Amino acid sequence: MVCTNGEKILRLSDCEAVYTSCLYQLRYITGLEPENGCVVVDKEGVTLYTDMRYMEAAEKFLSGTGIKPVLYKQDDLLKRLSAYASVGISFDQTTHSEYLALEKAGVVLKNIDIAYEQAMQTKEAWEIENIAKACEIAEDAFNALLPEIKAGMTESELAALLEYKMRSLGAQGLAFDTIVAFGAHAAVPHHETGLTKLQFGDEILIDFGCRVNGYCSDITRTFLFGDDGNHEEFKRAYAHVLAAHNLAKEKIESGMTGKQADAIARDYLKVNGYGELFTHSLGHGLGLNVHEKPTLSPRGEQVLCDNMVFSDEPGVYKAGEYGIRIEDTVTLQNGKIKSFMGKTQKELLIL
Amino acid sequence: MVCTNGEKILRLSDCEAVYTSCLYQLRYITGLEPENGCVVVDKEGVTLYTDMRYMEAAEKFLSGTGIKPVLYKQDDLLKRLSAYASVGISFDQTTHSEYLALEKAGVVLKNIDIAYEQAMQTKEAWEIENIAKACEIAEDAFNALLPEIKAGMTESELAALLEYKMRSLGAQGLAFDTIVAFGAHAAVPHHETGLTKLQFGDEILIDFGCRVNGYCSDITRTFLFGDDGNHEEFKRAYAHVLAAHNLAKEKIESGMTGKQADAIARDYLKVNGYGELFTHSLGHGLGLNVHEKPTLSPRGEQVLCDNMVFSDEPGVYKAGEYGIRIEDTVTLQNGKIKSFMGKTQKELLIL
Repeated sequence: MVCTNGEKILRLSDCEAVYTSCLYQLRYITGLEPENGCVVVDKEGVTLYTDMRYMEAAEKFLSGTGIKPVLYKQDDLLKRLSAYASVGISFDQTTHSEYLALEKAGVVLKNIDIAYEQAMQTKEAWEIENIAKACEIAEDAFNALLPEIKAGMTESELAALLEYKMRSLGAQGLAFDTIVAFGAHAAVPHHETGLTKLQFGDEILIDFGCRVNGYCSDITRTFLFGDDGNHEEFKRAYAHVLAAHNLAKEKIESGMTGKQADAIARDYLKVNGYGELFTHSLGHGLGLNVHEKPTLSPRGEQVLCDNMVFSDEPGVYKAGEYGIRIEDTVTLQNGKIKSFMGKTQKELLIL
Repeated sequence: MVCTNGEKILRLSDCEAVYTSCLYQLRYITGLEPENGCVVVDKEGVTLYTDMRYMEAAEKFLSGTGIKPVLYKQDDLLKRLSAYASVGISFDQTTHSEYLALEKAGVVLKNIDIAYEQAMQTKEAWEIENIAKACEIAEDAFNALLPEIKAGMTESELAALLEYKMRSLGAQGLAFDTIVAFGAHAAVPHHETGLTKLQFGDEILIDFGCRVNGYCSDITRTFLFGDDGNHEEFKRAYAHVLAAHNLAKEKIESGMTGKQADAIARDYLKVNGYGELFTHSLGHGLGLNVHEKPTLSPRGEQVLCDNMVFSDEPGVYKAGEYGIRIEDTVTLQNGKIKSFMGKTQKELLIL
């Protein structure tokens, strides 16, 4: 594919050139993220600066893309940058040390955080393909995991096994630290996976994701490891979380704000008595980062539009008792929600 | 254990207080690294600011350490910081955006990158214990991997299996992306693990490591998957790399510079005709980061001393043919090198 993200950022930046050494921004613009690398975009095109160690691989990868790999020499780079009328950098992703070095070399700097936010929240077709693949791997790994779940396994063992399956299926890494919570641990939305052992009748909540070419998937499933007959309240709540999840999928449309989207699930849960227990946002954008724009929350003023990718993840948490979260990664296409996740069961699963 | 790293940084900073929101610095000072957290150290002690999601876990973890967890409120924090005569922050680990926000609030800022470098390169006993554990897990995983290596496996499959074994043995994550290189791929020191399949007679190079409580291990082993009789040159080179590795272990002493340490292995390889093929440094410090000070290279001016932790990793690379690297994580104790790695074979292994 030909990546035009560099042009997109340059256009939105309103600068003569764009510069970055931030890894995910390098990946966004060139498809590569070499250590100690950096990139310059101007109206002539994209230059990737890298060192000897990565040069051969960069030449091979970039052949035919129009992006030039060049050996990094600090003096050459600073001289080049200082000749532009203005250079856009992301203040959120530049260390103060690097800012000072650029400033000292006479580079005219402008903050373009907003350009990255705006560009990255709407995905190109090839970016969506990477996310779709990362979602497929996550679901296939989950389905392969289910028959191997046994009493006595620890949360950490289960996480390790799931991660191994994602890696074996072609994931290049994790999107974030896998959360596995047994029993009442599920009531803590950011539970730290530990050494608790699985027992018959426990609920299991797993929040996980992987990466394909840098792009993330994000999925949560909640289910029961056998039914000990003590889960009536859990089951009622589960049915409502699933209804809220599905309602959001059905009703979210391009043109809505993040706040309106969030309200679809939030209002439903409130009416059914779970308002207080839904303690986080409905969703967040994802792409090269697991948290990006847009924000689907009571404070989400941003308008949702086609080719955005975000999570649909209502949750209900009762401290010391249970926690339920049902999350898909989804996208807006032709005005409507399309889920990347159709291979795993969302109706309550009892192993 | 009681962590005194906060006091250490404050003392070296020569400031009235120290502030950071950098994850590894948070971990260094408090043992925790909550998302959106930050820490303030002054002569009264250490305060960890965190949000509701992490408060319960933080209170539990920090109980008895003297470190206070407090709910993060930006205004309170900025007010507190602006009252100090000077606040030390790491310019290398602070984004320019955060710098501007602190400056705007009237906080008097001073760069203390050097204080972190100096403090972190010499480890406390409990830090060394974490590193030792991470090394032990890496070696145990490697030994468990060997009998499962089969013809036809891809580099990625082998990496996934090794990572799973580390996770299962208690690693909390990877220290860096595992490098698995088959055949001539080993000649590329930063080879990207891919879909190449293992064949009889291939050499295998694996560079890997894991984390325990944030602390890293780093180890490389090179060996043969069967002997097809075409490895005479490889074997000669292997014997020399191993001799260089062992010589460095034997001769490096507290009080030497990084340059002198590097020269022990470099001179040996040069004398034996491999000078041009040893294309990188002998070693690098590691701890909460996989690359820290000190640097053992021809430009390493720094003096090595007791309780430093670094790698001993001479390597020889012949493009298109073979690559050999033998790496242990080691420490200086009572003036001499002590390796964390004694459980895996370093004499040439032929599966």
